[in-house]
Amino acid sequence: MKNTLSVDRQSNQLYKQIYDYILNRIERSEWKEHDKLPSIRTLAQEMNVHRLTVFKAYQLLKQNGKVYVKDKSGYHVHPDSCVSFEHLDYPIVSSYFLRNHLSEIHQVPATYQFSQALIDPNLLPNLYFSEYVKKVFDLYPKVLGTYSTVQGDEELREALSCYFLKRHQLHLSADEILITSGAQQAIDLISRILVKPNDTVLLERPTYSAAIDIFRQQGAHIVPIDIYPGGYDLEQVESCMRQYKPRLFYLNPTFQNPTGYTVPLEQRKRLVELAEQYRCLLVEDDPFHDAYFDREPPLPLFTYDTEGWVMYIRSFSKYVAPGLRIAAVASRPPLMRSLLTAKSLSDNGTPLLNQKIFLHYFSSARLQQHLEKLRIALHIRKGIMEEELAVTDWKWISPKGGLNLWIKLPETIPMEELLIKSIEQSVSFVPGILCDPLRESASWIRLSYSYANEQQLHDGVQRLINLSRSLASSESK
Amino acid sequence: MKNTLSVDRQSNQLYKQIYDYILNRIERSEWKEHDKLPSIRTLAQEMNVHRLTVFKAYQLLKQNGKVYVKDKSGYHVHPDSCVSFEHLDYPIVSSYFLRNHLSEIHQVPATYQFSQALIDPNLLPNLYFSEYVKKVFDLYPKVLGTYSTVQGDEELREALSCYFLKRHQLHLSADEILITSGAQQAIDLISRILVKPNDTVLLERPTYSAAIDIFRQQGAHIVPIDIYPGGYDLEQVESCMRQYKPRLFYLNPTFQNPTGYTVPLEQRKRLVELAEQYRCLLVEDDPFHDAYFDREPPLPLFTYDTEGWVMYIRSFSKYVAPGLRIAAVASRPPLMRSLLTAKSLSDNGTPLLNQKIFLHYFSSARLQQHLEKLRIALHIRKGIMEEELAVTDWKWISPKGGLNLWIKLPETIPMEELLIKSIEQSVSFVPGILCDPLRESASWIRLSYSYANEQQLHDGVQRLINLSRSLASSESK
Repeated sequence: MKNTLSVDRQSNQLYKQIYDYILNRIERSEWKEHDKLPSIRTLAQEMNVHRLTVFKAYQLLKQNGKVYVKDKSGYHVHPDSCVSFEHLDYPIVSSYFLRNHLSEIHQVPATYQFSQALIDPNLLPNLYFSEYVKKVFDLYPKVLGTYSTVQGDEELREALSCYFLKRHQLHLSADEILITSGAQQAIDLISRILVKPNDTVLLERPTYSAAIDIFRQQGAHIVPIDIYPGGYDLEQVESCMRQYKPRLFYLNPTFQNPTGYTVPLEQRKRLVELAEQYRCLLVEDDPFHDAYFDREPPLPLFTYDTEGWVMYIRSFSKYVAPGLRIAAVASRPPLMRSLLTAKSLSDNGTPLLNQKIFLHYFSSARLQQHLEKLRIALHIRKGIMEEELAVTDWKWISPKGGLNLWIKLPETIPMEELLIKSIEQSVSFVPGILCDPLRESASWIRLSYSYANEQQLHDGVQRLINLSRSLASSESK
Repeated sequence: MKNTLSVDRQSNQLYKQIYDYILNRIERSEWKEHDKLPSIRTLAQEMNVHRLTVFKAYQLLKQNGKVYVKDKSGYHVHPDSCVSFEHLDYPIVSSYFLRNHLSEIHQVPATYQFSQALIDPNLLPNLYFSEYVKKVFDLYPKVLGTYSTVQGDEELREALSCYFLKRHQLHLSADEILITSGAQQAIDLISRILVKPNDTVLLERPTYSAAIDIFRQQGAHIVPIDIYPGGYDLEQVESCMRQYKPRLFYLNPTFQNPTGYTVPLEQRKRLVELAEQYRCLLVEDDPFHDAYFDREPPLPLFTYDTEGWVMYIRSFSKYVAPGLRIAAVASRPPLMRSLLTAKSLSDNGTPLLNQKIFLHYFSSARLQQHLEKLRIALHIRKGIMEEELAVTDWKWISPKGGLNLWIKLPETIPMEELLIKSIEQSVSFVPGILCDPLRESASWIRLSYSYANEQQLHDGVQRLINLSRSLASSESK
């Protein structure tokens, strides 16, 4: 990662492309385990580039363990870089897709579920929804026979437009809103319309793990921007914008995931100015806006944007009916047109039923009443988790909203072992390394307090502490 | 298109990358309207490539109208290649996304809707579904509080696995099935895991319009395979597989969209052999399998595949509750793993509610009863459309299933004008050019008979015929 970034961007494009080309042929088994690769001279001729470019590509391949050098006979395919399948006689079809690391952790079942930043289903208005659904079918008897428009149900977009104005002083027409199947789809669509291989993207460090994977998958160069309890170092932001000319800065400025930090009002205004000045779009993901404990967070960056340099992603169904998968992206017209095309090609529109169900709850007074109760419940759960953790020397900043604690453990605790043993004992958490674009932050973890109930919080955190103690002591033996 | 294909693939990669690089900077307004571009020598040095490569890139840019040459002063940015926005002071943010042409046609409202290959909502079991939905909430009271797994609801996948075995002699475990939000998402996910820029992909000619856009958007080189009433010319298929080493062949062999043609059994077996021999995946999209008139179509290609060279896409909700957006992809394990990652990054799983609703209908005897009735209704509607068209000299092969007629109009009819005038008169159809990867087939149209009711079929086709007559005669004046 760091390596790639320190390289000059322009010459980088070419040798990286040759690197990809070679790796691609290895992955497709055109060049197999221990095969001798073409000489630098041959490849340079064949591809019509300078030998130095091929040399650089081979150096990087060597460094990444994809090829090895044998005496004077040149470069050979390293066995580790070949795609392995369970059955050797299975057709080799390489995939260009990166792993979704977080989703792998989530697949592990655990009684003490601290890895998913989801709301405990017992805190949701489930019964109420089953009533609503019946109403939806009475109102729209053919709802299942009808496709939504690509942009999303107009009634729902109108309702959101009113909501944004009332709550965030945001003037948005229904045409500037796109309904997506969850906020993750929104990030994915945005990355697809804006990011080409070798484009630079700024990400917070740490950040939402799936966002790292999404932008990586698009072939982006990722430049990390540190986030602190008081926000960003704006000089770092500006210098990165100036130096790397990034396409966009994906940020989560309110009760940030995973840290819980909130970027202050003054920085928000300044960030929008910087975005404009350096022509770097801000992609503001705001899933925790409603999950505050004491007081409402500052207005979204989007509110301060007059020139169309912010795209705003807001997840809504998360707090009431996450199974509906309803989120919204707000964007000014030119980008909206591209988003609509991306959405139309990727799934042709979010199911109308889900939108109509959500609309009827969203438009009712119930939503705000529910959110008030939910905030109290989350605050209590956070308190319980923090109380349990108080006996340790672990360090964290107590968040004022959101669903997670971002905790630094003593470096004496071997993280990988802790994760494995925890899962054995049915406790799950997110290792900080997954939230770090640089894949460092090895002694940090993210614990979510929103999914487990109070008893589970007591018992699960206790188990985790005991485990970490036993590992730390066995280590120091 | 043709141009790109005739170029040698390897050297192509580099000059095409430089082409993209230049175009990209123009689109971002780093180089503006009429700006002089760097000389070939400068750019070759800067990018560390041979001058010939830059020359080729500039030639292609010129050919495509992106740059122009001014006397001896070199290459300049053509004004047409700059991104234009309604407001000139709006931030310029280029999109890399192609248009979804079909979706643009669909956005036009029309009383005589012959452009959408959808089932008339009045033919769907809507009332029945509203009953079912209540049941689903009784059975799964927390269904809205729960995310589906990324792969999809296990109960539904088990049900599909049984169905495939019973109906198509297809042995598939639930783990080899992924639930997607519509068949289009399946094509999109497959294209994302398998196709990299400059990879070659075979598409039928004509084919499903959105598939062309999806593979284009991935930067694929598209090589067309002609489809005839009797299937493909297998020699053409083999020679293309040998020559272009395509990643995949996307095909729709049963009541093909748009032609309605069906690839015969013998060709199906041979195609699977070819796929294996040339390591070219077959992506079999089978949305019309259940929409036959006289007898069931041959078994899917997937049935004959023992080595994992076929991926099978099946849209299910289309015929009962299209609003649910439920489709399935079947694939052998190694590719399934990549598909799951793609799905997890793109939307984290199809909503559980939609899957459960569909499951309960799918598992009931109602489905087959409904399909029987639906087939009769579609057959009748096809008959009406054909009867109306019988007075013309238009040519088509009467399909034995599916939702569309693929019709050749006399070349004297100006197609673009016909489309514009039709839409003015509230008649919509798909111009054949959108279904052609080569963007030719100018005198063909696709008429869907599945959405309009019988009266609308009579009146709408009549309008279309009258229009075409008036245009043909005014043309010949």
